[in-house]
Amino acid sequence: MAATYSALTHLECSRCPATCDAGQLQGICTCGAPLLARYDLAVTAALCSPGRIAGRRPDLWRYHELLPVGSAETAVRLGEGMTPLLAIARLGSELGVPGLLMKDEGLLPTGTFKARGAAVGVSRAAELGAAGVAMPTNGNAGAAWAAYCARAGLPCLVVMPAGAPEIARSECTAAGAETYLVDGLIGDAARLLADAPARPGYQDVSTLKEPYRLEGKKTIGLEIAEQLGWRVPDVIVCPVGGGVALIGIVKALSELRELGWIGPELPRLVAVQAAGCAPVVRAFQQRAAEIEPWPDARTVAFGLTVPAPLGGFLVLQALAATGGTAVSVTDAELLASQRQAARAEGCWVCPEGAACFAAIGRLRAEGWLAGTDEVVTVNTGTGLKYPQTLPASPALIPAGGRLPAP
Amino acid sequence: MAATYSALTHLECSRCPATCDAGQLQGICTCGAPLLARYDLAVTAALCSPGRIAGRRPDLWRYHELLPVGSAETAVRLGEGMTPLLAIARLGSELGVPGLLMKDEGLLPTGTFKARGAAVGVSRAAELGAAGVAMPTNGNAGAAWAAYCARAGLPCLVVMPAGAPEIARSECTAAGAETYLVDGLIGDAARLLADAPARPGYQDVSTLKEPYRLEGKKTIGLEIAEQLGWRVPDVIVCPVGGGVALIGIVKALSELRELGWIGPELPRLVAVQAAGCAPVVRAFQQRAAEIEPWPDARTVAFGLTVPAPLGGFLVLQALAATGGTAVSVTDAELLASQRQAARAEGCWVCPEGAACFAAIGRLRAEGWLAGTDEVVTVNTGTGLKYPQTLPASPALIPAGGRLPAP
Repeated sequence: MAATYSALTHLECSRCPATCDAGQLQGICTCGAPLLARYDLAVTAALCSPGRIAGRRPDLWRYHELLPVGSAETAVRLGEGMTPLLAIARLGSELGVPGLLMKDEGLLPTGTFKARGAAVGVSRAAELGAAGVAMPTNGNAGAAWAAYCARAGLPCLVVMPAGAPEIARSECTAAGAETYLVDGLIGDAARLLADAPARPGYQDVSTLKEPYRLEGKKTIGLEIAEQLGWRVPDVIVCPVGGGVALIGIVKALSELRELGWIGPELPRLVAVQAAGCAPVVRAFQQRAAEIEPWPDARTVAFGLTVPAPLGGFLVLQALAATGGTAVSVTDAELLASQRQAARAEGCWVCPEGAACFAAIGRLRAEGWLAGTDEVVTVNTGTGLKYPQTLPASPALIPAGGRLPAP
Repeated sequence: MAATYSALTHLECSRCPATCDAGQLQGICTCGAPLLARYDLAVTAALCSPGRIAGRRPDLWRYHELLPVGSAETAVRLGEGMTPLLAIARLGSELGVPGLLMKDEGLLPTGTFKARGAAVGVSRAAELGAAGVAMPTNGNAGAAWAAYCARAGLPCLVVMPAGAPEIARSECTAAGAETYLVDGLIGDAARLLADAPARPGYQDVSTLKEPYRLEGKKTIGLEIAEQLGWRVPDVIVCPVGGGVALIGIVKALSELRELGWIGPELPRLVAVQAAGCAPVVRAFQQRAAEIEPWPDARTVAFGLTVPAPLGGFLVLQALAATGGTAVSVTDAELLASQRQAARAEGCWVCPEGAACFAAIGRLRAEGWLAGTDEVVTVNTGTGLKYPQTLPASPALIPAGGRLPAP
């Protein structure tokens, strides 16, 4: 790897003291926990700076020293990154937090934040010689990985719940991925893959079962810091299914802090889940260090239907380290917030992103958030992928008819 | 207007010698033709340069001197612009044009290029005191204007054909627009609006019936030039419904040429239509100067269902001025191209964007395009808004079952 592009040095276990060679394909640690990519931050500081980054193309590869991909040529690109950080003052005021900002991840290839992990994960898998990738998915991750695999010319095997958003089926098959539905949830999809007839050389790219999807997601945090002028807000609110975005944001800000590009204080992180599947919220409230699987998981925010997230303990650690909290909201609350955001700001956010608005209103009412807090919320995808969430029946007028008076 | 933000001076008729005051709301010229915004290019050159623009935020407002909006504060923003210009070499090679690039307008708010016109048009309408806006639409423009109006707090009235993509109904109503369906085509929607009970102070923002939507669309051309390092490609291929994107691209490049920021030669422009509604192609082939309405318009690329585009003569002029051409493709051809792009590049383009790939293959086969040409094609929106165009039926596996062998 050319040291001038990536400052990646090695992989460390997130739970035990083990380290691993980053130069070959790796899965999880022998202890069963996710592996984390580590960088030479002295090299990073020598190679780049906020000023240098400002002169680079507005996509996530502008942070290439802090990403694992070895060269510009092996980066698989569909134009991902540098999504807008929008002031959402009208909705913020309605929620009691006028200084509300929204990181709008709907403006990414395939319409969700999953594109970040897929861009970096597929690039690295291809670079290290994987013959293909395989994953269980709640839909959007599979769609993103399928698209980037098509772009890279890499085979992709995807299994998703039959209840996942229908459009993801089309996205996966259209991109040429070998695609199956399972009559169950994402854990059932994972079990099908574990027992599947071998696809030689395929890498298991399940959430946090390889180290690089997290590195792609990390760029949400890098961008927020840069877009605020290399500082952090008071609070960052993020939906948590598998938890990779939240874990990635904290990893990013920790690296920036170590580089000295932001100050010593991290924002308080808020993990938002749906009442129908809230294993992280329950563990947080019980002050547990580990996640217990959630029975009968069910929510319209399908991306949050992750009953037993492998990285749940890392989310809990991030909340503890930053003085954060965890909140669950009902489907009725998040659907109402989705409608409110569309009306107030013209933003059709996904149900998972809408859950954060409901959580913000709750936290403000409870006083956990102050009215003066600067709060960044992460909308993880476009509402266009969830057409049934905002049904409409406008009046039909005959061609020779007349519109009603206003 | 602060001269330091916009260099707008006045409006000129696109057909007759009339000029108009740009400081108040204007529709079309008394002669019936669209009005064009004109700028003081000497002021522009004094205020900005390619180098200065490079240091600005990556959205379309970086070109604010060449836009009509009077201040940064009155710009209505949802994070629009600086969409990726992607090398599409694999698909390009399949089409015989390896130097193919795609401007991917799917990565805009509301998922289509309509966001550009809406951002600038709504900003300017609000700035000049419109009480609301009203428009007929094939769906995506209405969705974009509804979203930006919600963001601006401006009332919006939209009428769309019942056959327009269903998701646009939800987008418009969710954003709070007064929304109606008409049992007919976009011309019938326009007639309903013309006969509607008055909404006092509403501006008619039909395609090219106000001067500023075009200015927003123009930024596609500005971005292409900047992304290529302030030069132009050999050819630009663009779908044509109302024609605003193509007209805007040529207007942008003409302004850049006059500024001396690009060389004297413009790219050849290609207008692409669907065989089921090809009034511009027919006029081009007949060497006519004006468009005749197309009877019984019908295509799966619904955005191209514009039987009598007001700006058709401007498209014809742009093709003539640049040595371009016009091509129509069948629905079967464009749907096959859509599938081919998804498989080869991981890009689920909209049917209108897919039509351009079919046209490029045809033009290469006919020799109009050379294999060495650098060709930029405009994908005007994401395929996610057209879920029925790539249907999928993956196999359903029971939770206790087993995946088939590869």
